[in-house]
Amino acid sequence: MKILLVGALGTVGRAVAAELGGRHELVSAGRQGGDLRLDLADPASIEAAFQQLGTVDAIVSAAGQVGWAPLLEMTPAQWAYTVSNKLMGQVNLALIGQRFLRDGGSITLTSGVLTHEPVAYGAGASLANGGIEGFVRAAAVELPRGLRINAVSPGVLLESMDDLGPFFRGFQPVPGARVALGYARSVEGGETGKVYAVH
Amino acid sequence: MKILLVGALGTVGRAVAAELGGRHELVSAGRQGGDLRLDLADPASIEAAFQQLGTVDAIVSAAGQVGWAPLLEMTPAQWAYTVSNKLMGQVNLALIGQRFLRDGGSITLTSGVLTHEPVAYGAGASLANGGIEGFVRAAAVELPRGLRINAVSPGVLLESMDDLGPFFRGFQPVPGARVALGYARSVEGGETGKVYAVH
Repeated sequence: MKILLVGALGTVGRAVAAELGGRHELVSAGRQGGDLRLDLADPASIEAAFQQLGTVDAIVSAAGQVGWAPLLEMTPAQWAYTVSNKLMGQVNLALIGQRFLRDGGSITLTSGVLTHEPVAYGAGASLANGGIEGFVRAAAVELPRGLRINAVSPGVLLESMDDLGPFFRGFQPVPGARVALGYARSVEGGETGKVYAVH
Repeated sequence: MKILLVGALGTVGRAVAAELGGRHELVSAGRQGGDLRLDLADPASIEAAFQQLGTVDAIVSAAGQVGWAPLLEMTPAQWAYTVSNKLMGQVNLALIGQRFLRDGGSITLTSGVLTHEPVAYGAGASLANGGIEGFVRAAAVELPRGLRINAVSPGVLLESMDDLGPFFRGFQPVPGARVALGYARSVEGGETGKVYAVH
């Protein structure tokens, strides 16, 4: 399969690339590097990346920034950043990208453990994750041409514990290689409208 | 209790007013009428309404418009409307309103059955509902002064079936009076971070 991987340079993205790269042709895209430049917050850059890429078999987003701050210190700009990146950025990736998928192709977005297991500083992430999970379930009902859409909900990655450990005390870290299996299941399986929790 | 009820003129709002109005002092607020004018999409109008109102014991939102269209016909304007009303409008109501709550006061927002049980045309609603549920769980972790926050997830209301019936075939309609119990449980109970599903 030819797979567009957005966020290939992130912790999750690198693990997904390691899992899928041996079996498939990966095209990486991101704000800061990769085969294609693509900023989730900029729908025009999503459209431009797909125009350059052409038809693909699968779209995988391992991307999506959020504001990260104490609840009552989150600024309007941090909320807007959350919405335009991890939430509507991934929605726009799906809605623009579906036109470039072959019949029966798949879209895989990223939510996260904070949907249901919140932590301090994480209200933006919980909101974006919950929105993505709702969107994925709904979009699966209406996507045409046998297109599929799922989300993977990673726990906090073992590889991220140096940075994120203090925010996730008591959470079981998950190796990136195990999280990547959720993406493989979405891309290479047959289901749609699912949220694969890897916590 | 003195309770601000946003969206008091809607189908859910009227049922909530009937349930809570006999026991509490309700102050209604909405775009089109009520004791106070308040447009969820306009944070300045939320702030102005609370400045006029002063301290309250509870904030209840039975409001929140969304875009409603086939998935692939949802316009950027409809997505923005969805985000600025039901999603971030309710978030802003909570974040602005918490400053005006007495210690131990409560916030109750509205999500809906489409979070987990999608229908065609409902992707905006599913996204907004999922985001609200994630936000409520996360905000409960950080709100100060014993403040509580919950969501009620109503099914399709029996009173709405003339309008919404064709979109909700096979769903069990729920009488507004039963949905209103979810709001009473949030306001008059002691829990926080909960989603009360009344489906």
